Amino acid sequence: MQQAQELLALCASAAKDKETLRIGISGVPGAGKSTLIEQLGLQLLTQNNHSKLAVIAIDPSSQISGGSILGDKTRMTDLSNHPRAFIRPTPAGSALGGVARRTRETIQLFEAAGFNYIVVETVGVGQSEATVQSMTDLFILLQIAGAGDDLQGIKRGVLELCDLLIVNKADGQNLKNAQETCAMYQAALHVFAQKPNGWIAKAMTCSALNNQGITQLIDILNSYALYTKQNGSFQQKRTEQLQAWFKAMLEELALKQFFQHPQIAQLYPQFQQQVAERKDSVANLVHQLWTKYK
Amino acid sequence: MQQAQELLALCASAAKDKETLRIGISGVPGAGKSTLIEQLGLQLLTQNNHSKLAVIAIDPSSQISGGSILGDKTRMTDLSNHPRAFIRPTPAGSALGGVARRTRETIQLFEAAGFNYIVVETVGVGQSEATVQSMTDLFILLQIAGAGDDLQGIKRGVLELCDLLIVNKADGQNLKNAQETCAMYQAALHVFAQKPNGWIAKAMTCSALNNQGITQLIDILNSYALYTKQNGSFQQKRTEQLQAWFKAMLEELALKQFFQHPQIAQLYPQFQQQVAERKDSVANLVHQLWTKYK
Repeated sequence: MQQAQELLALCASAAKDKETLRIGISGVPGAGKSTLIEQLGLQLLTQNNHSKLAVIAIDPSSQISGGSILGDKTRMTDLSNHPRAFIRPTPAGSALGGVARRTRETIQLFEAAGFNYIVVETVGVGQSEATVQSMTDLFILLQIAGAGDDLQGIKRGVLELCDLLIVNKADGQNLKNAQETCAMYQAALHVFAQKPNGWIAKAMTCSALNNQGITQLIDILNSYALYTKQNGSFQQKRTEQLQAWFKAMLEELALKQFFQHPQIAQLYPQFQQQVAERKDSVANLVHQLWTKYK
Repeated sequence: MQQAQELLALCASAAKDKETLRIGISGVPGAGKSTLIEQLGLQLLTQNNHSKLAVIAIDPSSQISGGSILGDKTRMTDLSNHPRAFIRPTPAGSALGGVARRTRETIQLFEAAGFNYIVVETVGVGQSEATVQSMTDLFILLQIAGAGDDLQGIKRGVLELCDLLIVNKADGQNLKNAQETCAMYQAALHVFAQKPNGWIAKAMTCSALNNQGITQLIDILNSYALYTKQNGSFQQKRTEQLQAWFKAMLEELALKQFFQHPQIAQLYPQFQQQVAERKDSVANLVHQLWTKYK
């Protein structure tokens, strides 16, 4: 444990000054995340012979089952066979907090090992998207046409997280619908998604299956990196993320210490029993146990 | 604050022996949650002249924007005008934890006031669904056909939370698709959703818009309540929920106490500054600050 921490400290130090880009990608199951990541990854690696790319997945739905449908190498065959790509299955963990911490450490390990593109993917809305956004430089929301083509479909809180919205599967008879959906999102992004760093979130269509739009995507990634590095917000965002991580680790220690405190550890089971027997309200029992703490 | 806690203790005591049913409902935006809740509510209130129904919404997407698209009275005009119904807008709050606590307290207030049906609704997958499931007797997942008609569309972790899955909008030319989707979910539920209490999660279609399937839904609610009360799991689940709540409140107090500890409160800003300046790894800085705590 101690050695692991020392190793991570060395990695953090080794990774400190490297030029890396951390890309978060979220989208509902079936939106085509793996296809997009594979095409994006292959093109990034082809453009630069010295670049290395890692894919990490956070699967909030696996907290109960322990199973995972993300980060599966079988979904990205070409990318996972690439000598300069590494695809990591979902870190195991019983809580999103623990998974988030391990993911942050994994990012540092990859960067220390010379990976300059780190893709962190997740499904769903809400907490897991905020978690991914909290550890990446740029957050992409992958949508498909028709899944959210009314006002209710615009998840405002998630739109506010995203720096780039991609409407995938813009091909064949789906093309027109995808373009209309994209225009609607673009309008919504103008209202909701002006970032503190001045970046206005963009919307674009693509067809990952047909490898269409990937060049445009890379252009946007590059212009985002350039823009945020020029105005200083790139580094500032990473700083704020480190500070949030610092706080989360302290909270974890504080809770561990509290529940291992002799009086609390001894009385906690009895109080849980009293809660079960409805001896008193939860708030009153909390108050009573709390007074035993130091 | 003290008075509020005393009032809540009285409410918990007053609500203790009442026969109430807490129903959690989740679904993506556009799945038809409000229409379903309105039809369900009206029919429950019509069936029993003494029953009262409350609707509470938890909106995980409003944590950043402060806005809300849930719990809006304008979406449930007939129900909100009913003399024995009460629709509560989303509790304000900056974190899901705080919102969850206030929602639990709100449930107790409603039950003390004689409301016997409590509906708690939320959007999205992941954390907010788990939160709603953690405070209700029965958790309904509302889906629409076609939104998840492949294996990836089955969010296993969420399926494991749900006691009843409803495929809404089973009407018109959408009927066959909805029935097929329902059959697919039913098969998946058999694999994933056997509950510790022995209940096997059910799947059904409905058309909330056409008021079709609501009677069947009420039958399932009644049979769930009967089944879980007979085998004791109804009460056991509520006990476990109270215990989890007890633990969450203790954690909140422990964290507050930690960050208000004189040494920590004084040094924390300096350490956050050192994190920002990358003086050392996050883990090492956490360790250094921790040693200052008592």
